Amino acid sequence: MNIIIDGMGGDYAPAEIVKGAVKAAEVIPHDIYIVGRKAEIEEELKKNKYKKKSIKIVNADDVITMSDSPVKAIRRKTESSMVVGLNMLKDGHGDVFISGGNTGALVVGARMILGRIEGIDRPVLASVYPKLGGEPSLLVDAGASSEAKAQNLLEYGLMGSIYMEKVWGRKDPKVGLVNLGTEESKGTSVIKDAYARLKTAPINFIGNVEARELPTGECEVIVCDGFVGNVILKLSEGLAWNILKLVKNMLMSNLRTKIASLALKSKMSSLVKEFDYEEYGGAPVLGVNGPVIKIHGSSGSTAVMNAIIKSVPYSEENVVNIIRQSMLDMEENIESSEGN
Amino acid sequence: MNIIIDGMGGDYAPAEIVKGAVKAAEVIPHDIYIVGRKAEIEEELKKNKYKKKSIKIVNADDVITMSDSPVKAIRRKTESSMVVGLNMLKDGHGDVFISGGNTGALVVGARMILGRIEGIDRPVLASVYPKLGGEPSLLVDAGASSEAKAQNLLEYGLMGSIYMEKVWGRKDPKVGLVNLGTEESKGTSVIKDAYARLKTAPINFIGNVEARELPTGECEVIVCDGFVGNVILKLSEGLAWNILKLVKNMLMSNLRTKIASLALKSKMSSLVKEFDYEEYGGAPVLGVNGPVIKIHGSSGSTAVMNAIIKSVPYSEENVVNIIRQSMLDMEENIESSEGN
Repeated sequence: MNIIIDGMGGDYAPAEIVKGAVKAAEVIPHDIYIVGRKAEIEEELKKNKYKKKSIKIVNADDVITMSDSPVKAIRRKTESSMVVGLNMLKDGHGDVFISGGNTGALVVGARMILGRIEGIDRPVLASVYPKLGGEPSLLVDAGASSEAKAQNLLEYGLMGSIYMEKVWGRKDPKVGLVNLGTEESKGTSVIKDAYARLKTAPINFIGNVEARELPTGECEVIVCDGFVGNVILKLSEGLAWNILKLVKNMLMSNLRTKIASLALKSKMSSLVKEFDYEEYGGAPVLGVNGPVIKIHGSSGSTAVMNAIIKSVPYSEENVVNIIRQSMLDMEENIESSEGN
Repeated sequence: MNIIIDGMGGDYAPAEIVKGAVKAAEVIPHDIYIVGRKAEIEEELKKNKYKKKSIKIVNADDVITMSDSPVKAIRRKTESSMVVGLNMLKDGHGDVFISGGNTGALVVGARMILGRIEGIDRPVLASVYPKLGGEPSLLVDAGASSEAKAQNLLEYGLMGSIYMEKVWGRKDPKVGLVNLGTEESKGTSVIKDAYARLKTAPINFIGNVEARELPTGECEVIVCDGFVGNVILKLSEGLAWNILKLVKNMLMSNLRTKIASLALKSKMSSLVKEFDYEEYGGAPVLGVNGPVIKIHGSSGSTAVMNAIIKSVPYSEENVVNIIRQSMLDMEENIESSEGN
């Protein structure tokens, strides 16, 4: 397969993107197309030893910046690395597209250029949610839209479940709806409606989950609107860092514990790693006609490499087609039950 | 002043309520009225050595349970400890009411029996949000209503600011609005409208805050709807406990760090204490015509004592009157600016 990556997207592009692509090419047997300013990318490639056959450059002169307005940028910057890369995916010149650029532009661009999967009202960005000492969960919506209708939340649960099963290899992943309490009667009218829809969907819906339960990883697909999703991701990050900093300061504050602290250093860093998005393979854009992955703007070469590796099952397991088929099946089920 | 406490509200009522009242009576020079089933409360009082003069029992035969529907319970259970207590506050037989009972019933009861402060559209429950290694913040809404209008969010910010200043002694507390990003243009239409209102309010509004910043305590009054507030409080609790458990396990896993772990035990427990709601004086119901405090259902005697102590400035600093006056001033300002 051919993997397309935005060579200009992210704080450390193109250097870290190129380095990550080179690393990934050592591990996987696929071709990697780096899209962006040819001269700059060649310059970076020269700094690395790499498999010439598997890394290719596709020139794109323009760049969508973080301050660009998404819709305008996608419409006007037709020569940008992001638009060129998405068009390559659309035209079949590649099987997956990865970018660390402007998140809004990537979600909008994927929707405008690739189009929504039939039956999907709103494509969404999903993100890994780390579990301490265990396998991570997937959170949908990670912040693509600040509000959601019940039908959107149903789609999030369905698409997240398929992604977890196909890309992460989870069997019947547990899907939970973030709510004020576990009772079916809790929450806003939108949440109650979403509960009713998720209950009848062909997924392993475990009902409402309280935010307190999220760090245990019991709920493998976390369904919420983008506002709540943003709060969950950012609060977890902020709190984890603050607690670990405090524990570290405690350990360093006297000689006896200072010695222990040094002994613990490697263990502590493995704990911090759990909150390190570099370890996971990026955030999929779900609900568009093609596999698209967003990586963090500050991604280093490890994050880039991991995202490239994770993009393989996202494409090869036919996640997009399975989502399409599931939506059709659900609509047929509703029609046939209405016909009765 | 006279402090009224619901003797039957909470998982360990009346035993821990009575014990907490006895402890508080040692510290503050005020009378404490325990409302509930007289025989049961007398039984508990007998187990403690206490100042007979400062602790009084007011009989109430009925109890509102956790499974009672709030509105129905307040209307029908007129002889319950909660309704009797709230009526005492209304009729001037006490200066503050504290309960660990059904949260929904307490908020609804406070609104129905005491009435809203003029100009306040919706009373709200505020809660302490702990800061690691520092003074806590106040979070409004802690889960009273799952949705909020812009005007509600304005009221939350104003009332929270007054409470923090008068009860916690903070000068010009920093008020922040939880949002997806810090830019004024971010968020839902409700959030954008709330931003515009908070900006003109007579408070120290610092603008939008991202959830990542909350654990640092920079924002002293955290404004959000009750759904988001519930997610913030419960996720913080769950995550803190999970991280600390993991650190503890790490420390205990080998001999060298095990010794250090014992040395650290007291330090660790002081860290856990930061997430212990028992340390803080309960959650005020803001926006009703009288000071009402909710304590956690699982409160032990320390939490009860702390809430009783914290109830003194809530009443004596005239928080309710100051909120009323602030609302009047704001309305007059709007009218006079509209007249120009």
